[in-house]
Amino acid sequence: MDAASAAVASKPPSIDELIRLARGDMAGVDALIRERMQSPVPVIPALADHLIGSSGKRLRPLLTIASARLCGARDDACLKLAAAVEFIHTATLLHDDVVDSSELRRGRVAAHLIWGAPSSVLVGDFLFARAFELMVEAGSMAALEILARASRVIAEGEVLQLTRAHDLDLSQETYLQIIRAKTAELFAAAAEAGAVSAGAPREQRQALRRFGQDVGLAFQLVDDALDYSGASEVLGKNPGDDFREGKATLPLLLAMARTGAPEEPFWRRTVDRREQTDADFQRARELMRATGALQSTLDLAADYAAAAKAGLAEFSAANPWRPAMEDLADFAVSRRA
Amino acid sequence: MDAASAAVASKPPSIDELIRLARGDMAGVDALIRERMQSPVPVIPALADHLIGSSGKRLRPLLTIASARLCGARDDACLKLAAAVEFIHTATLLHDDVVDSSELRRGRVAAHLIWGAPSSVLVGDFLFARAFELMVEAGSMAALEILARASRVIAEGEVLQLTRAHDLDLSQETYLQIIRAKTAELFAAAAEAGAVSAGAPREQRQALRRFGQDVGLAFQLVDDALDYSGASEVLGKNPGDDFREGKATLPLLLAMARTGAPEEPFWRRTVDRREQTDADFQRARELMRATGALQSTLDLAADYAAAAKAGLAEFSAANPWRPAMEDLADFAVSRRA
Repeated sequence: MDAASAAVASKPPSIDELIRLARGDMAGVDALIRERMQSPVPVIPALADHLIGSSGKRLRPLLTIASARLCGARDDACLKLAAAVEFIHTATLLHDDVVDSSELRRGRVAAHLIWGAPSSVLVGDFLFARAFELMVEAGSMAALEILARASRVIAEGEVLQLTRAHDLDLSQETYLQIIRAKTAELFAAAAEAGAVSAGAPREQRQALRRFGQDVGLAFQLVDDALDYSGASEVLGKNPGDDFREGKATLPLLLAMARTGAPEEPFWRRTVDRREQTDADFQRARELMRATGALQSTLDLAADYAAAAKAGLAEFSAANPWRPAMEDLADFAVSRRA
Repeated sequence: MDAASAAVASKPPSIDELIRLARGDMAGVDALIRERMQSPVPVIPALADHLIGSSGKRLRPLLTIASARLCGARDDACLKLAAAVEFIHTATLLHDDVVDSSELRRGRVAAHLIWGAPSSVLVGDFLFARAFELMVEAGSMAALEILARASRVIAEGEVLQLTRAHDLDLSQETYLQIIRAKTAELFAAAAEAGAVSAGAPREQRQALRRFGQDVGLAFQLVDDALDYSGASEVLGKNPGDDFREGKATLPLLLAMARTGAPEEPFWRRTVDRREQTDADFQRARELMRATGALQSTLDLAADYAAAAKAGLAEFSAANPWRPAMEDLADFAVSRRA
């Protein structure tokens, strides 16, 4: 067990302090989100509200605010960037759920099952465009560059996942490349954009970019572990979705490698050909626990969280935002949903 | 017949001169498009090339170049904006074809039928993000504002069309609102962004925005007429798609209004309930010709083209780009595909 895991074990991980520090800013971000999801076309706010009004934790905009304030931002340009980050995230969720035919999202029926896939695609486009309108208002060409690039990298990651995710010979390296693009890039860009909006020097900007990326990797690794270990009422989505879709995430790749030839027919049938009974998912979970595949995934997440926290050494320990951001790294690993 | 129609009749409408003037710039735009549709994820350039490499006329980037040069642009910032405009257009085509389940696009099998709807959605997102990366490189916050807003308005128009397009009680006003948003807005933004990149004064910028909008309206009206009067080998898509989908375009709205009560059962069955035989489309075409619904649609298009040309009075007639752009307005009306 490394330092990060020990830290997680020694105190109840929570982002309460971060939420307290950011309360005023996040109220402003929330108001912006509510205002900018409006449209004279009624389906748009209805569908957007279904997703945005639900139980999302808003970790990404929180990261933008925290980075900006940690770097001493005095104005509110970061609020618009934070709202833009949440819109980009929401747009990708809408498109992902269409792509994956997901049934649940944030504890609610997925939007495309209520309004149809076409509406989800187009409202995603609307939110994506709104994000860029907000960035233009924020007035930072550097932030626009960061978030335009991130949007492109996310799309590349999603396509890579789409074309490779069912490949049981996927290497751990390609898996990490996928989650780095589809998840960690937006965390990285969210943090970097916050730093940029504060006029932070290059080193701080880079440090926060790396922090966001490491937290994002930890977050996605835990997400992939929770799909085998979580409970649906806590997750807000069905556990086992990845297994049913035959998605080659790290817990699965490790379990397959560690169970070897004796279990190969089981994995080929259930994951490759997706011929599954209800009992198969339980068996997959047991194999993951028995081989330590879930624990290894969580350990890797803890390593990234530890790296994220170490990267904040760049900033004064007296700055209250620094420990609050360290909590965020711990939270990414310890969360149950 | 008004002035525009007379002009169309008196000379063979062609954009050859515009294409000749813009040849060097458009070669640069093409090179940018080829370069920026690349990605390490192989599906992305393959799918993008399927659409971009086909017979598209590139009217929108041509409009950006023409506007910029008409306003005296001396540098090549407009090339990046023109490529961005084409990427936004291509992204909306990819998403539209998924939304409409279209089978043909630009004379080829629609991309989603080859690579699947998920790839089309995600490659659309990639191209959209690439467009913003190009705009950032062009370095004009004003152009970014124009094209971000346009992207949002297009999405709103698409959603409005999705929710209202099968409403046979659609007013002509709502129909025009839909095509203004989903089609004319990008033409308007393409022209305005070109003017902005040239540092044009406000009046010229507004004049070119209106020009683009009017040409865009004419273009879409003709598109909707061609869906009832065109031949598939010329169109590059199947005529009758709108009829089969029960899409309430102007020719249909006018034909229904003009045929009145006697034909109401025919329209209710074929368009509302979409119970159609092969002969029904032929009958719809005949009713459209007999009632003058097609001609009225084309007349309205000619009116917009005339307004577009009149708006160029702001510019010197000695500037070779002005008559070339007037040709574009005529071409939008007279085209057969």
